[in-house]
Amino acid sequence: MESLFESLFYKTEANTLFSAEAYLEAMLRFEAALAQAEAEQGMIPVAAAQAITEACAAPNLDMVNLKLQIGLAGNPNIPLVKQLTAAVKKIDPEAAKFVHLGATSQDVMDTAMVLQLKAAVLLMQKDLKQLLAQLRHLAEEHRHSIMVGRSFMQHARPITFGFKVVTWLDGLIRSAERLEYNLQHNLVLQFGGAVGTLAGFGEKSEAIAQSLAEKLDVTLPHISWHTQRDRLVELASTLGILSGNLGKIAKDISLLMQTEIGEVFEPAGAGKGGSSTMPHKRNPVGCVAILAAAQRMPALVAALLQAMPQDHERATGLWHAEWLPLVELCKVSAGALQQALVLTNGLEVDTERMRQNLELTRGLIFAENISLALADKVGKATAHEWIEALCQTVSATHTHLKIIVLADSRIQALLSKTEIEQLFDPANALGECDRLIDGVLATF
Amino acid sequence: MESLFESLFYKTEANTLFSAEAYLEAMLRFEAALAQAEAEQGMIPVAAAQAITEACAAPNLDMVNLKLQIGLAGNPNIPLVKQLTAAVKKIDPEAAKFVHLGATSQDVMDTAMVLQLKAAVLLMQKDLKQLLAQLRHLAEEHRHSIMVGRSFMQHARPITFGFKVVTWLDGLIRSAERLEYNLQHNLVLQFGGAVGTLAGFGEKSEAIAQSLAEKLDVTLPHISWHTQRDRLVELASTLGILSGNLGKIAKDISLLMQTEIGEVFEPAGAGKGGSSTMPHKRNPVGCVAILAAAQRMPALVAALLQAMPQDHERATGLWHAEWLPLVELCKVSAGALQQALVLTNGLEVDTERMRQNLELTRGLIFAENISLALADKVGKATAHEWIEALCQTVSATHTHLKIIVLADSRIQALLSKTEIEQLFDPANALGECDRLIDGVLATF
Amino acid sequence: MESLFESLFYKTEANTLFSAEAYLEAMLRFEAALAQAEAEQGMIPVAAAQAITEACAAPNLDMVNLKLQIGLAGNPNIPLVKQLTAAVKKIDPEAAKFVHLGATSQDVMDTAMVLQLKAAVLLMQKDLKQLLAQLRHLAEEHRHSIMVGRSFMQHARPITFGFKVVTWLDGLIRSAERLEYNLQHNLVLQFGGAVGTLAGFGEKSEAIAQSLAEKLDVTLPHISWHTQRDRLVELASTLGILSGNLGKIAKDISLLMQTEIGEVFEPAGAGKGGSSTMPHKRNPVGCVAILAAAQRMPALVAALLQAMPQDHERATGLWHAEWLPLVELCKVSAGALQQALVLTNGLEVDTERMRQNLELTRGLIFAENISLALADKVGKATAHEWIEALCQTVSATHTHLKIIVLADSRIQALLSKTEIEQLFDPANALGECDRLIDGVLATF
Amino acid sequence: MESLFESLFYKTEANTLFSAEAYLEAMLRFEAALAQAEAEQGMIPVAAAQAITEACAAPNLDMVNLKLQIGLAGNPNIPLVKQLTAAVKKIDPEAAKFVHLGATSQDVMDTAMVLQLKAAVLLMQKDLKQLLAQLRHLAEEHRHSIMVGRSFMQHARPITFGFKVVTWLDGLIRSAERLEYNLQHNLVLQFGGAVGTLAGFGEKSEAIAQSLAEKLDVTLPHISWHTQRDRLVELASTLGILSGNLGKIAKDISLLMQTEIGEVFEPAGAGKGGSSTMPHKRNPVGCVAILAAAQRMPALVAALLQAMPQDHERATGLWHAEWLPLVELCKVSAGALQQALVLTNGLEVDTERMRQNLELTRGLIFAENISLALADKVGKATAHEWIEALCQTVSATHTHLKIIVLADSRIQALLSKTEIEQLFDPANALGECDRLIDGVLATF
Repeated sequence: MESLFESLFYKTEANTLFSAEAYLEAMLRFEAALAQAEAEQGMIPVAAAQAITEACAAPNLDMVNLKLQIGLAGNPNIPLVKQLTAAVKKIDPEAAKFVHLGATSQDVMDTAMVLQLKAAVLLMQKDLKQLLAQLRHLAEEHRHSIMVGRSFMQHARPITFGFKVVTWLDGLIRSAERLEYNLQHNLVLQFGGAVGTLAGFGEKSEAIAQSLAEKLDVTLPHISWHTQRDRLVELASTLGILSGNLGKIAKDISLLMQTEIGEVFEPAGAGKGGSSTMPHKRNPVGCVAILAAAQRMPALVAALLQAMPQDHERATGLWHAEWLPLVELCKVSAGALQQALVLTNGLEVDTERMRQNLELTRGLIFAENISLALADKVGKATAHEWIEALCQTVSATHTHLKIIVLADSRIQALLSKTEIEQLFDPANALGECDRLIDGVLATF
Repeated sequence: MESLFESLFYKTEANTLFSAEAYLEAMLRFEAALAQAEAEQGMIPVAAAQAITEACAAPNLDMVNLKLQIGLAGNPNIPLVKQLTAAVKKIDPEAAKFVHLGATSQDVMDTAMVLQLKAAVLLMQKDLKQLLAQLRHLAEEHRHSIMVGRSFMQHARPITFGFKVVTWLDGLIRSAERLEYNLQHNLVLQFGGAVGTLAGFGEKSEAIAQSLAEKLDVTLPHISWHTQRDRLVELASTLGILSGNLGKIAKDISLLMQTEIGEVFEPAGAGKGGSSTMPHKRNPVGCVAILAAAQRMPALVAALLQAMPQDHERATGLWHAEWLPLVELCKVSAGALQQALVLTNGLEVDTERMRQNLELTRGLIFAENISLALADKVGKATAHEWIEALCQTVSATHTHLKIIVLADSRIQALLSKTEIEQLFDPANALGECDRLIDGVLATF
Repeated sequence: MESLFESLFYKTEANTLFSAEAYLEAMLRFEAALAQAEAEQGMIPVAAAQAITEACAAPNLDMVNLKLQIGLAGNPNIPLVKQLTAAVKKIDPEAAKFVHLGATSQDVMDTAMVLQLKAAVLLMQKDLKQLLAQLRHLAEEHRHSIMVGRSFMQHARPITFGFKVVTWLDGLIRSAERLEYNLQHNLVLQFGGAVGTLAGFGEKSEAIAQSLAEKLDVTLPHISWHTQRDRLVELASTLGILSGNLGKIAKDISLLMQTEIGEVFEPAGAGKGGSSTMPHKRNPVGCVAILAAAQRMPALVAALLQAMPQDHERATGLWHAEWLPLVELCKVSAGALQQALVLTNGLEVDTERMRQNLELTRGLIFAENISLALADKVGKATAHEWIEALCQTVSATHTHLKIIVLADSRIQALLSKTEIEQLFDPANALGECDRLIDGVLATF
Repeated sequence: MESLFESLFYKTEANTLFSAEAYLEAMLRFEAALAQAEAEQGMIPVAAAQAITEACAAPNLDMVNLKLQIGLAGNPNIPLVKQLTAAVKKIDPEAAKFVHLGATSQDVMDTAMVLQLKAAVLLMQKDLKQLLAQLRHLAEEHRHSIMVGRSFMQHARPITFGFKVVTWLDGLIRSAERLEYNLQHNLVLQFGGAVGTLAGFGEKSEAIAQSLAEKLDVTLPHISWHTQRDRLVELASTLGILSGNLGKIAKDISLLMQTEIGEVFEPAGAGKGGSSTMPHKRNPVGCVAILAAAQRMPALVAALLQAMPQDHERATGLWHAEWLPLVELCKVSAGALQQALVLTNGLEVDTERMRQNLELTRGLIFAENISLALADKVGKATAHEWIEALCQTVSATHTHLKIIVLADSRIQALLSKTEIEQLFDPANALGECDRLIDGVLATF
């Protein structure tokens, strides 16, 4: 059923990166590069490396048989090497001896996965950069669009929409840094042989390892990591956090799209977000896709974490438990990121409705303003008490707080009418919105 | 990449049940049955129902367009209904008015999912029944195969292999009952219209609902469950527990297959469990696949649980978050079950090695026997103390505990030589193995 | 820090059930009952059982030493038995031999946990029964309180608040049944000795087991379950689902309390839900506590599920991994249930605001009504198209849909003015609310 | 019950850091520092700051009332501020006006949590440093202790125990780096007021924020993070990974302690790891505690991740959902780390048994050596085929592979007797163990 949901939950390019074909191709890249590195160090004949390279480029795999054998062998590398060896034999029977020499299945599979992960992270990096740019634009555009800030989904005090966007940016900027960190540190060559000791390569092991890493353009770590999986978990967690960042944006927008709020809307489009029964509806389809993604990630990250205590030099089950969750993590993240790009490009912002909603509490959201102004004179506790009582009058009498405050003789004695009116002007209640926006925008 | 691992982690029949095609077909079954039920109650013309039924049987879907529209509409039912309506129009333009009448997308999608889940549970039920039979056979066959029981992976006291198998059965029997319970109670019709009130069906709603449920052969619940998802979570948990049961079996067998233990082996087979580098190895491939499955399930169950607090009458994201994890739960469970069938059919049991391993501790596993026999005479604490000291002599001198016990004058005064020898006979240390085996086998 | 949050996240009585003292006491109940059962069957002297029983009733534990020894022994039963034996010795030195005879730590600890779990489930059962009663009252009271039903947080079609409450009830009724099922089936005696074979009890094992189960008032299972943990996982899942049910209620109420919606409010109270900075706010404090609980449960359930594949006859780590999550599951569930009782007792429902909000879309929520009425005449697709266009006019012109529809000549030709007016009456758009309410209320 | 398990699962110092008292004290540190910073900038009188500081140092809290009020207020800061204000009033009635001025509960609570987390991370950093030192020592000591390397729990090829220890170190070194990163980047001041805009502080907000951060010795971020929680999730993930690293060590040691393997043992000690029934046993108690910890962490990390999509400026439930899991993460991690220190300090390594176990497969683990040596001459595939057949002869005839190989005429033609004997010397099969050990040890 997954294929049905590709346009909703995934990104086509990311799915392609993790196709069966791409994975097999990445394994074959390893096998070819290994043969070449071994030939360079005189471990195998140059001609053998050439034959292996040639076969890896066009292995003519029997996919039906391959898939069947995976169930028996327990992993895809074993049957792949068998078919590859047969293909090499056809080119150069002598060369067939040297296929996969000294490596273990996990060397090939982990490195192939790393190559795919790297491509996926690069893809997401590009999209995230674009998302940051879109949000910067949105923040600048709405730097002065006053709206209510909400706590516990209650009106609290005014903010600007630009400020809200900048809080989104704040988290995403760190996610971008984490992606870069993972690229630099966590996507490294796997190369150790059966138990990680490089026992099949003799004294040339170091040179072969370096050459192999270079050819595949991945970093060479100090030691193989067959059962030390923390790097992959850190990547998983980074992707989980990224989806969490995006989920926060989707949560906010879906709440702001509520019929009763109506301040912000997903970009419209033909066939977008309609209902099968209700012609008037405009559903937050993109938000929903992102929220579903954010909802799925924690369990996938947990699956990776749970697989860490792997036994001995090569694990009995926990390695296998990583494969599909790791791929799903990338596919879901890339999909959520793509939806976020669509969502925030052409977002409809109803600044007029934002202004109207600010008045819904009949001035109550300015209560803290008054309270703070009075605190200076009568202390925080007394001020809070007075204002709490006046707020109840607002609710009971459906009168605007400003009218009630202006009429209160205790307050009249302490604050002038002009002072009171300024305290009820949203523009005077924005605090440091502007400076904080600048602070965040200056960091990327 | 998933497709590569089908023979390892999945069961082909289960994958087929959850193909895109099967899902669309199940939705079309709903649309056809709905039209028929509505026609029966005079809500739509009989001819219209016939045209809709005909189109549902051969809708000639444009899959490319369908998949594209899903991303815009946010779910597959909306574009499916559009294409279906077009198909009906070609047969009978008048009938096109009556497609999907009164239903909401979620009615169709949830019910289609229920139909698929039901088929999957039936499939697993069959496999589980077969697994129970195989394990019953194994338990009977090895009712008297004495081996060591282990606690904290240390030798503890003797059991029989039949007893161990029966403890596996014990959990699986309950899982079989849970599957049946879920079939009976949790896979029910979804039918409520836009907000669950059946507002589009007038006074005939009840009759239509009953007829629809009958046609689709699913139970009719008291009320729709658009945002009350506990039934699905209970099914998810049932599948998680089943995989946990299987994981326990795989855990035990993989440990028993250790080179140093070698008591039980997965059935051998050409190409089965070999290593790409080590010709002598026989890897627990089936166990590994099951352990990986058991490892993945908790996160999937958690994902379903996490999606329970759905907002209002139809949810914003949490419904969408259920779709793929629910399918994956079924596919992984069915796969683990299939692997367990293979694993336990032709399991190799080395009863000779079990006997040999019993002696590895030089009689220490009978220490409790002696301790209990002495407790009768000198009290548990003193007995424990004496025996603990003698056990240390075993380790220090590499002498068998029986020899040391026979030579201990304090014990000589309390137990005869024959008594001591009987206390060191494994067959006398099995407790109630036999009765407990019978107890469990009698329950199914 | 946990203790700080007791009044927010927990229920004091549940915390008490799971105190260190209660756990030790439950273990001592086991030890006393075991001695008595063994004495009945002549396995130990009656006098010994009396002394042990006496000591269990007043063991004068050295808690500091006990806690210290737990770290060394790896579990609390081993040091407890040591202190108990010393206490027995003081009463009757001879009796000290017979303390804990034949049992293993896990027999005692698992059964003690079962006794605590049972008490906790009974407590929750009582609260849940009360909650069902409160919600029944609320449903009856608001059977005719019309409000808007929402899908994707958008206005969809009218429902009644009673209908909404009944959908909450629907899930909770099943949770009540699950609690009862767990009481009956999943909270059973653990009794097997070192490896589950009851080897320490000779031929009297069955009689001792039965008597022990009777004395502790728990069911006797066919076989011990030292490494078959599915029953506990099923209980965990039941509690997780219950919290999910409650989370759904809290989600709805917190959304309905939004400043812009204001239809339903948590009961007020002195000091309840205020803000430290904003005197006018009324925060959904109870909802927040329940939502936080619902959020925590999936991970706790997953932790139990993850611990299922336990090795051999007694596990290396996974048993230990169950202890604290299991307790936390009960404490959090009981706390959420208590909060739900407070939340729904004295819930403030603003039926006037519900009526007002129904009009917010200027009649758009009746669009489907019109669409369905027209579908009869021009087909669903055409009707949907017409109405979709008219809905856009509503948005563009800020005119009520009824006015636009009444002015549409195509519609005038098909529907009379009276018909149209009826289609815009919320009371005519409620579908089967009433019947569905009755259906659910009749089930408990 | 938690308190019972402190010596097993927790570290006393870490528990103290997270006591209710410590949390309240940390909040009071914030309130005092805030008042001081405000006084410095002339926002409140210096005398008021002095009175507040004085009261914060000795607030004489009514803990019973405080705990009760938390349930009503929904968080501990609101009632704390009330009691603090009363305490200040007693010192200086005028000063009471200025308590908590401009801040919001979450500013105080998040910062207090950050202060506790920082202390906990520093504690773990110290323990981890010590653990690295112990493991370095162990690696050096056993640089030449040859043992078998295992894959899928089957004998694979020789390694040294030093090599195994170095693979443990490899992961832990990265965890140490991650802890440091978190200290530098993720434990920052929370300071924003009601909606994050610092609206209560006027133009002095920046100076007050800087001064507050300095006084509390935490970094000042660009913007408040009330609903941007990625930093805490990254810390959670770091702790989860650390526990995973430790779990891997415990997994290996518990497997190596198996009766049948017996190569490595937890340090012994009076009362350590005994059994209540079996006097001879030595249970891996420390391993079990660590494994249980590693098992619990993924769900706790997932809980934090799941709480990321927080609504608007201050969240409705998801913030509350973080509190206890975050504390538990620290307590469990610190406990696992402490157990690992004990476990690896005085670890018993039986190098003689390691040597013996190497021979268990009758030379099969050297099969790859022979295979690789032959591959040079007859190709990998043929070599693999020959050796696979000879390995079967080993199993069938219980003869050592070396004898069989020496007798094989095909091999005699290709390899000399001396060459064959060298191929069966474990010391010649260690590959690059030594170089790889050096490589890792050089990095810290």
